[in-house]
Amino acid sequence: MHGLMMNYPLTLAQILEHAHRIHGSKRVTTLLPDQTFHSYNYTALYERVQRLANAITQLGVIQPGDRVGTYASNTYQHLELYYAIPCIGAVLHPLNVRLTAVQLARIVREAEDKVIFVDGAFVGQFEELREKIECKQIVHFNPNSTHTGVAYEQLLSEAEPAYSWNIHDENWAMGLCYTSGTQGEPRGVLYTHRSMFLHTLAVNQADVFGLTEADVVMPLVPMFHAMAWGLPYASMFAGADIVLPSVKPVCLADLIAETGVTVAAGVPTVWAKVYPELSKRKQDISTLRRLIVGGEAMPPTLIEAYEKNLGVEICHAWGMTEMSPTGTFSKLRGTHQNLSDAEKWRVKAKQGRPIPGVELRLAAETSNGFTKLPWNGEAVGELQVRSPWTASRYYNIEPTTEHFTTDGWLRTGDIATIDVDGYMQIVDRAKALIRSGGESISSVALETSLLKHPSVLEAAVIGVPDEKWGERPLAVVALSQRIDEDISDDLKQHLSVEFPKFWIPDRFVVVDEIPKTSVGKSDKRAILGMFISTGNSDLP
Amino acid sequence: MHGLMMNYPLTLAQILEHAHRIHGSKRVTTLLPDQTFHSYNYTALYERVQRLANAITQLGVIQPGDRVGTYASNTYQHLELYYAIPCIGAVLHPLNVRLTAVQLARIVREAEDKVIFVDGAFVGQFEELREKIECKQIVHFNPNSTHTGVAYEQLLSEAEPAYSWNIHDENWAMGLCYTSGTQGEPRGVLYTHRSMFLHTLAVNQADVFGLTEADVVMPLVPMFHAMAWGLPYASMFAGADIVLPSVKPVCLADLIAETGVTVAAGVPTVWAKVYPELSKRKQDISTLRRLIVGGEAMPPTLIEAYEKNLGVEICHAWGMTEMSPTGTFSKLRGTHQNLSDAEKWRVKAKQGRPIPGVELRLAAETSNGFTKLPWNGEAVGELQVRSPWTASRYYNIEPTTEHFTTDGWLRTGDIATIDVDGYMQIVDRAKALIRSGGESISSVALETSLLKHPSVLEAAVIGVPDEKWGERPLAVVALSQRIDEDISDDLKQHLSVEFPKFWIPDRFVVVDEIPKTSVGKSDKRAILGMFISTGNSDLP
Repeated sequence: MHGLMMNYPLTLAQILEHAHRIHGSKRVTTLLPDQTFHSYNYTALYERVQRLANAITQLGVIQPGDRVGTYASNTYQHLELYYAIPCIGAVLHPLNVRLTAVQLARIVREAEDKVIFVDGAFVGQFEELREKIECKQIVHFNPNSTHTGVAYEQLLSEAEPAYSWNIHDENWAMGLCYTSGTQGEPRGVLYTHRSMFLHTLAVNQADVFGLTEADVVMPLVPMFHAMAWGLPYASMFAGADIVLPSVKPVCLADLIAETGVTVAAGVPTVWAKVYPELSKRKQDISTLRRLIVGGEAMPPTLIEAYEKNLGVEICHAWGMTEMSPTGTFSKLRGTHQNLSDAEKWRVKAKQGRPIPGVELRLAAETSNGFTKLPWNGEAVGELQVRSPWTASRYYNIEPTTEHFTTDGWLRTGDIATIDVDGYMQIVDRAKALIRSGGESISSVALETSLLKHPSVLEAAVIGVPDEKWGERPLAVVALSQRIDEDISDDLKQHLSVEFPKFWIPDRFVVVDEIPKTSVGKSDKRAILGMFISTGNSDLP
Repeated sequence: MHGLMMNYPLTLAQILEHAHRIHGSKRVTTLLPDQTFHSYNYTALYERVQRLANAITQLGVIQPGDRVGTYASNTYQHLELYYAIPCIGAVLHPLNVRLTAVQLARIVREAEDKVIFVDGAFVGQFEELREKIECKQIVHFNPNSTHTGVAYEQLLSEAEPAYSWNIHDENWAMGLCYTSGTQGEPRGVLYTHRSMFLHTLAVNQADVFGLTEADVVMPLVPMFHAMAWGLPYASMFAGADIVLPSVKPVCLADLIAETGVTVAAGVPTVWAKVYPELSKRKQDISTLRRLIVGGEAMPPTLIEAYEKNLGVEICHAWGMTEMSPTGTFSKLRGTHQNLSDAEKWRVKAKQGRPIPGVELRLAAETSNGFTKLPWNGEAVGELQVRSPWTASRYYNIEPTTEHFTTDGWLRTGDIATIDVDGYMQIVDRAKALIRSGGESISSVALETSLLKHPSVLEAAVIGVPDEKWGERPLAVVALSQRIDEDISDDLKQHLSVEFPKFWIPDRFVVVDEIPKTSVGKSDKRAILGMFISTGNSDLP
């Protein structure tokens, strides 16, 4: 028997309308490239989003599900697009500006973006992509006279001011975000209004991000990366002020002090770098209450430094583009308050517990499927996930058991433990994904490319610890013939054609033979051991 | 275009499973009738819920949507039923033990409850209802030898220990709760798994109830009233400890001190009564951080006393059985922190802002529908509501425009203002509903009954302010013939047949004629004015 409740679809238009009606005076502040601020309130944003909705429609984005690309950093225009595109029934497709033009060209072709909105700051670097794609409609933010394409502000000024949101079904696609690509090829994840609405409610639980109306939220995570962890939606549903640094601030501590940031979110690399600046305490950063840290694990010593010396709570969040992206959140339990400091940091160094709505399981692959492993903090298995905001398949790719189990779970590719309290800890990566500065680098993709070089016989790429970036790729190669001169520059040149700069290994080590596992695959653990345990000077 | 996310239904089984997996050690403590405690953890509860699921199935509750009644106070068994019944696909139907046997008999007949679970404490009073209904399957908690029916613990011990939850569709009905009845007849609201899941996520937003894993939550609101404001689900999804007073504690302050309650929820009458006890501060009640107050408005002076003298935050919540029940929540905005105390209490005395997911509008009825009124804190109109957890119609009643607008909004029957910040304040009641001790009394129902008395010609029942109960009914009657002796006892006796004791007006005032409005209806405002403005000694 069905219940008798309203048939009320869960859509992003509800979030926008709520923000507008209830929190119209809350502010969105963007740090511009010239280090000045642009600031306006939700009401002004709302009015521009309505105009933008009409403008995008005028550009021919009229079919539900039409894809619209963005090539932009964290700015108020990007935030406007985060709402206007989905709320007309189209699909927001943020392009990761850190990928190469070759990678992005493939993605844009696959996504068939009808329009691409380009941030003025990126116009130069966008040109290389533009030459490779057929998308004829390019709209520039803050364009100057040398830029081609249509000007954003002109579009808005010419557009009708009122728009009625046009989403008829909560299962309509609202966003398309490509992964960094664990197998060398980024894959598209197609979110629904329903999944993003639910993700928003879930992360705003008091025990998760816990954003409130009194917060000032600063996402340092780029809006082209995993939907900026859902913060553009979560912040506005909560009615928080938002600070968007479109560029690296001259001084992050100054920015926090000036704007009164209470919650900031980003990868550990950023927090490691800014710690000395913040610890000088020349500025009043007492408003800052919490850092949400994701992308990779923050070292326990840094967690301790933030919590003890700066009084800033550090919370790990773990997730994937495939998960909208939040899966777990690490906060101490009430009973943990009695632990010693050392024990506390050990708990906090884990990736945390599944947030309400997310199911985790640890699986061991067997000849006929998977067996479930216990949550005892010791059993190590593949982490699998299920939730209302997890992808069931990739865009334009038939689902395979490599990524999705036959009983409906996502295979994360991470190897983890889970303790009795539900705290999950990543211990390894099934796919040898290297995490550098919060971005993923695929060792498999680099290996595949290296093997195309005429002099390379065997290749293995591993991630080695790096103080600044968390991890950096190190390439180990066996050559097809003896070469006496250093082949590093040659190989770097070779990889640069295909991959972005940050993917290129810092060091290349030549060996006679790559160590193999029993099934003849590269033995990454053994290779890593060669460098880690011997303190090999070849380490970057 | 549809997105590519998991088809993952929102069900209460997800809440139960999450609570069990992540928060198994958290505790549920029940204050028993003999003032001792029963206490166990979520894991123990989970195991009993599984057995209970099998036991209920064994009793013949096998069709999705079969209704199962409960006639019980706030106890761990009732909490077990809150999960077991919906999670087998059946419908939890809590019976309001404060209604009369006549009212409940009609409700049970309409709901066709297949089984009714009866609290040992209520066995005596249940007998009167039992005689009037056909439900043959009665299960008693804590029965003693004089009780008929099946014993709960025996059922559990004989049941199979494992159960696989059986909900195939998030739109399946999960609960049936009757209103107090604004028109004299309580009406059933049929919740879905989806609506209750979403309500749970919404109230656990950091800016709404904001329950966390570190909380100890005590619902004083009865579990037979408006789904106990959703707290049985919200508390366990958050992983909070729960304290259930099945009876009035000898000393509420002792109970709070002993169990470390951090958040409690109930009607203002309770908090008014307990304030002197708490303010003596013999006990350490420092854990108590927030009271969630609903059912009626708390007087600003009492809000001030709690906040200033006890350091306990008071938050008004407003809602209706039809809304699962939460619609608004009153918390100061960040910018309100700069207000004077007096101004703060004035904001807090309002019913609050719509919670994320809820839409409000103020409407004025016109000849051809409604017009929307502005949110300026002055315009007074009928409050209308829409949300994913609002009823679209009543159980077993064809929807009428009296309750639902043709464009899909619920007509709350409340008259309100909304200010520019979205704070809603109830100023009057369209349906002359009298709120006494958190319960509703229908003046219309009492009037209809009074008119059946042979001596009564006209009757009007109004609510007059009452220090203890908030409001109490006062009956004004015009007699069909002159009667010199006091008719009050006669009329009380007459009403007692049909209504519970607390519905019976404390005073009866005989007038020559009831004041009428221009369309010939009783002029309630004028009648109220007669008693309020003249300081009439007939006031209770």
